[in-house]
Amino acid sequence: MPLARRLRYGMVGGGPGAFIGAVHRRAVALDGLAELVAGAFSANPEKGQAQGRELRLDAGRVYASFEEMADREAALPEGERIDFVSIVTPTHLHYPTARAFVERGFHVVCDKPVTTTVEDAEALVRLADRHDVVFAVTHNYSGYPLVKHARALVADGTLGRVIKVIVEYAQDWLATPLDAAGHKQAEWRADPARSGGSLAVGDIGSHAEHLARYVTGLELERLCADLTTFVPGRQLEDDANMLLHYRGGARGILYCSQVSSGEENNLRLRVYGTDASLDWRQEEPNVLYLRRQNRPAEVLKRGNAYLAPAAQHATRLPPGHPEAFFEAFANVYGNALRTIAARVAGEKPDPLDLDFPTVADGARGVHFVQTAVRSGRERGWVDAAYEPPTPSRG
Amino acid sequence: MPLARRLRYGMVGGGPGAFIGAVHRRAVALDGLAELVAGAFSANPEKGQAQGRELRLDAGRVYASFEEMADREAALPEGERIDFVSIVTPTHLHYPTARAFVERGFHVVCDKPVTTTVEDAEALVRLADRHDVVFAVTHNYSGYPLVKHARALVADGTLGRVIKVIVEYAQDWLATPLDAAGHKQAEWRADPARSGGSLAVGDIGSHAEHLARYVTGLELERLCADLTTFVPGRQLEDDANMLLHYRGGARGILYCSQVSSGEENNLRLRVYGTDASLDWRQEEPNVLYLRRQNRPAEVLKRGNAYLAPAAQHATRLPPGHPEAFFEAFANVYGNALRTIAARVAGEKPDPLDLDFPTVADGARGVHFVQTAVRSGRERGWVDAAYEPPTPSRG
Amino acid sequence: MPLARRLRYGMVGGGPGAFIGAVHRRAVALDGLAELVAGAFSANPEKGQAQGRELRLDAGRVYASFEEMADREAALPEGERIDFVSIVTPTHLHYPTARAFVERGFHVVCDKPVTTTVEDAEALVRLADRHDVVFAVTHNYSGYPLVKHARALVADGTLGRVIKVIVEYAQDWLATPLDAAGHKQAEWRADPARSGGSLAVGDIGSHAEHLARYVTGLELERLCADLTTFVPGRQLEDDANMLLHYRGGARGILYCSQVSSGEENNLRLRVYGTDASLDWRQEEPNVLYLRRQNRPAEVLKRGNAYLAPAAQHATRLPPGHPEAFFEAFANVYGNALRTIAARVAGEKPDPLDLDFPTVADGARGVHFVQTAVRSGRERGWVDAAYEPPTPSRG
Amino acid sequence: MPLARRLRYGMVGGGPGAFIGAVHRRAVALDGLAELVAGAFSANPEKGQAQGRELRLDAGRVYASFEEMADREAALPEGERIDFVSIVTPTHLHYPTARAFVERGFHVVCDKPVTTTVEDAEALVRLADRHDVVFAVTHNYSGYPLVKHARALVADGTLGRVIKVIVEYAQDWLATPLDAAGHKQAEWRADPARSGGSLAVGDIGSHAEHLARYVTGLELERLCADLTTFVPGRQLEDDANMLLHYRGGARGILYCSQVSSGEENNLRLRVYGTDASLDWRQEEPNVLYLRRQNRPAEVLKRGNAYLAPAAQHATRLPPGHPEAFFEAFANVYGNALRTIAARVAGEKPDPLDLDFPTVADGARGVHFVQTAVRSGRERGWVDAAYEPPTPSRG
Repeated sequence: MPLARRLRYGMVGGGPGAFIGAVHRRAVALDGLAELVAGAFSANPEKGQAQGRELRLDAGRVYASFEEMADREAALPEGERIDFVSIVTPTHLHYPTARAFVERGFHVVCDKPVTTTVEDAEALVRLADRHDVVFAVTHNYSGYPLVKHARALVADGTLGRVIKVIVEYAQDWLATPLDAAGHKQAEWRADPARSGGSLAVGDIGSHAEHLARYVTGLELERLCADLTTFVPGRQLEDDANMLLHYRGGARGILYCSQVSSGEENNLRLRVYGTDASLDWRQEEPNVLYLRRQNRPAEVLKRGNAYLAPAAQHATRLPPGHPEAFFEAFANVYGNALRTIAARVAGEKPDPLDLDFPTVADGARGVHFVQTAVRSGRERGWVDAAYEPPTPSRG
Repeated sequence: MPLARRLRYGMVGGGPGAFIGAVHRRAVALDGLAELVAGAFSANPEKGQAQGRELRLDAGRVYASFEEMADREAALPEGERIDFVSIVTPTHLHYPTARAFVERGFHVVCDKPVTTTVEDAEALVRLADRHDVVFAVTHNYSGYPLVKHARALVADGTLGRVIKVIVEYAQDWLATPLDAAGHKQAEWRADPARSGGSLAVGDIGSHAEHLARYVTGLELERLCADLTTFVPGRQLEDDANMLLHYRGGARGILYCSQVSSGEENNLRLRVYGTDASLDWRQEEPNVLYLRRQNRPAEVLKRGNAYLAPAAQHATRLPPGHPEAFFEAFANVYGNALRTIAARVAGEKPDPLDLDFPTVADGARGVHFVQTAVRSGRERGWVDAAYEPPTPSRG
Repeated sequence: MPLARRLRYGMVGGGPGAFIGAVHRRAVALDGLAELVAGAFSANPEKGQAQGRELRLDAGRVYASFEEMADREAALPEGERIDFVSIVTPTHLHYPTARAFVERGFHVVCDKPVTTTVEDAEALVRLADRHDVVFAVTHNYSGYPLVKHARALVADGTLGRVIKVIVEYAQDWLATPLDAAGHKQAEWRADPARSGGSLAVGDIGSHAEHLARYVTGLELERLCADLTTFVPGRQLEDDANMLLHYRGGARGILYCSQVSSGEENNLRLRVYGTDASLDWRQEEPNVLYLRRQNRPAEVLKRGNAYLAPAAQHATRLPPGHPEAFFEAFANVYGNALRTIAARVAGEKPDPLDLDFPTVADGARGVHFVQTAVRSGRERGWVDAAYEPPTPSRG
Repeated sequence: MPLARRLRYGMVGGGPGAFIGAVHRRAVALDGLAELVAGAFSANPEKGQAQGRELRLDAGRVYASFEEMADREAALPEGERIDFVSIVTPTHLHYPTARAFVERGFHVVCDKPVTTTVEDAEALVRLADRHDVVFAVTHNYSGYPLVKHARALVADGTLGRVIKVIVEYAQDWLATPLDAAGHKQAEWRADPARSGGSLAVGDIGSHAEHLARYVTGLELERLCADLTTFVPGRQLEDDANMLLHYRGGARGILYCSQVSSGEENNLRLRVYGTDASLDWRQEEPNVLYLRRQNRPAEVLKRGNAYLAPAAQHATRLPPGHPEAFFEAFANVYGNALRTIAARVAGEKPDPLDLDFPTVADGARGVHFVQTAVRSGRERGWVDAAYEPPTPSRG
């Protein structure tokens, strides 16, 4: 169903050379649900304006800071001001930026980890609730159609009771000291102050944890983490291995590494139940393996009518015409934006559209990161149970 | 390099329920190089207007026919009228539509096969030349970065002399008589009058032939085709197997089928040279296999710095973050649109941007389809050599 | 069921440095159904004796020629002489060797192609019938358990009506002129006199044809072959592409090549039916893909209880413990030897044991090779229907 | 190089219905280096004799117990008695059996884990040293050629410094309570008394640990294990996840599970170095992936001349003709038996033949199993460093 009108949005961060800002913009553009009309792209005003020109924005809506943007957009007439903001800055700026916009009643789409501390994340959960805004967090890997189908397979009992989860996320882009060599994206991620005290776990382990939670619905109970810094001079871990205990008895392994030579973006999830298991890899996202005891394995492929409604809802092309990273990212945006549009129009959102990660998911992610860091420091099992603040309304 | 301004375009075809129109629009939207401002979406005026509303077009630029659109857009002031038209109708309408726009000086992006007859295709080649317009044809599979790298590997001699080409394209969506059951896209494709006298070869064999030619640079000399109609009641072939002779001595096999149970969109190209071979599959487009004699095979992956400039030029995301069908489609558009923008701006296009299929490629494709049909009818080897009209200027 | 006693066998060919002789011996040894007790390993008596010593044979049973071996073994008492002979010589020697042993009442296991001419093959079919001996031909790829299951899937209608067969067999070991450089195995294969007038088709195309026939049960009706010699100086084709028509309307493609850079022993069979298709590759022989329309593909794996009896009969290890080339070869031997043992014991063979290629299959193979050569020479479609002589008894 | 004579061996265990006994016998038969001449196959004398008859042994050399066999074989003349014994009993019988034969000067090939306690294993190390016998342990997965090549790649520095090891071994055959249902092989493995106090870790984790150690050469320093019993009623763990610290700073994850639905025998090893990584899977054993930073991944295949001498030494077939489980098992035997033959002949063994797991490796394996069990019980990191007794001579 097409929206009544295209939404308007602004972006904070995503200036020249930033990687993730352009990803967010393309993800929005793909489906045409929203139009970028404002931005505070850079702490450097010249760079900000250059980015605005490249994006063909009205110079008057390219702001020097997120504070200015929040204030001035809020002052615009309703039919003109942005409907939501996309926050794509380094992590330490998420909290003040998001707060500024939420407090002015703007909906928010924010990159992950949502904040650097659990306290900040919880504050945002409560604020979003109080101001009744949609607050989506771009755990984009949950946007893949076959991830949604995996979740449906767990939910409908195809796997039996889930007893084991293996989730891994390996990269090698930080196998050399890029961060010490001035590589912008590496630099802030490796900086304790800006990243929130974790490199690999915060940057990619948080995606892995969200993916496992999204698919299985399981809650962590305890974990034992082994964090290592392999590249000399680095202050934060670039590799982490963890044992997991889930509530209800399931066991798990999570590992993430940014120094695994030859790995590009190898996020993989395996879930084992008492009857069957599933296996999905981000680098080959259009297939999902379902393996049952004493039966042939099944290869499920995106785009087919046999997939769950949530998976079909997240699909644009017929089988065999692969969709990939941008489309998954666009699925997170699609559901969030249709939900925002329903709010804007005063309508009830389609239940299928409510399937996107929220600030409460973000809070769980931050708690996970902090817990892993603590376990690593303490060298042993620690309590990992967590429940974010309960919103006052659905 | 960003364009000086976003181009404006119109679309002919692509009304409600059409598959490929939405693909073209998303491919354009992804990179934001052009904006849709006009359309003649349907022979049914109500459907056309409905589509225009969904796309938020000015109702005055939603036209009842391509003739009206060509005339009225040509009459608009230069800063307002479309820069190019996208033609996404059934095949038999490509020729009159394209002619109308080319003759009025509009650039064209047209779906394939470019026409139903070689004569029409050649007429368009000459017209595009005379009117000095860019005329791109969406052989979209050549837009994949690793296909471009494959081409570079052949060109730089990594394979040695190419001696064998195996290109296959198998689907199963026409394994049942959808066309007789009123399925819109199946119906016109299976209709000799609208498709140009070939079903499987025209619809997908033409992609296979273009892919092989694009990568190897080889010209066909002779072919022997075996065309079969497996689904009762169908007038055109739904399966075709061919032996190929290329100029210079290389041999080949091309097959395409739309009745191959369990196949989705399985386009695969293998090229064997005297030193090495390459292997690429559309359904797993982010990897390319390079196999040399007595050496480990190599798995090349999209996004890496070791790939050829044309492949890197066609890439938006780092390694391991897969790109897929839309992005490949957008690569055909991207190069064509940057070339159009250069023309509009009176500048010389970047050589990397000239890498897109043109109307002359389209003419070769139509000749191939007709030759295959003739060979199938005559049950034997036929001459397949062809050279489209030479443009008067580069 | 263990045999009442271990059979005794002799080998013709398979001297020092020969590849296939050792394969046959290991295939027999694996299951211990027979013991090598005699041999005529080489035309060179010293080499023959050396081989005999290495194999710990009684020097008195290492013969200078197959004629001598046939005569002298026939003269031994029943409890001592060989039960069967394995013939592993170059092709041109198969016929005289096999005839000598069959005429003396010995059972035979012979490498393929069974002879160099159809006439010779037919003569052996009649002789084997007249002398009532078992005559197995080592089309070893039909020995793989999942090939047997594939055959069962076709037979039980899982695929619907078979409409298309794609069988390919690519290697690169003859991509350089090994044959001209004195490589023993290459040399005789490339010699028209010794190989029977075909290189690639005889050596590996015959395996491909048998595999397709074994699995589908389809009979060839017509074919159109394109044979090429890519390596200069070679007299026979090293690459062949063919279009196939099967009785009943199925179509096919068969290709084989020994000059395909980077290919090792890539035999692959795909069979498409009106309901489903199957896909098997010799280099990954423990998996078989079954793909149905609009359903997840299935990955069948060797060793599972869900496989057909013929497949389970050909299995020694549980799932996940891969079996491979030797085991498949041993399966051809296993069935043939158990059938021979039943004959020797005057018992009726187990029907599952009758599943091995016979001299009649060998005759079909030779006819196929000769037909392909003729089509290649005549450059067009030729009649390929063939029925070997009917044995007088089952 | 062929042996001067075929060795003679006896087997303890491996009676009717036993799985692993037949595997050992086939592994020996494949290469014909030894001949089975004696056995104590079963505690049940009738079953033992039945097995002896099936194997065509002299009834006088089918013994009622290992003690009888050791005594009576030792009493035979040198040219008649066995050269070595294969021990394929449940684990708790390995120690007394092995001791009986070692003390009488027989060479030994023993299944794994070599004993149920570290003390017993160390006793065997010392005994084997004192009696100067070859004592091989069938960690058969180290027999795969590409595992040997992986080891060579680590040794020659291709990977740089190894920093991370991921080794996993998943099965599902114990996902149901087979052990409680009288399944013979499951029963003793799940019995603390017979298995040595560990199910999954002892049965398959020990293979995983050996594989990782064999390839990397790294020694464990500490580990943290999480052992779980998922199937109700079972006394021992059927699933285990571990974090590993290696001497020198490398980190690792090892997990094994026999309740992972849909997994057959999925042993996989990944080793990451500072420059490159490697990846091998037992179920697809003929390929090894080598991935370097910023370079195409390489797919190494068995049988090629580019592989290390140890890998080529363990190969019987050319590339593309897959070898598998039996052949790997035969490689352990092959090297051990050639080493035994050299000892028997009073010659120095070929260094390539010394590449097989010994009783000292077995002791390390038992120590690992016990350490994992202890860590699981103590729920935390424990010291895992271990050095078996040093033999008095090489």
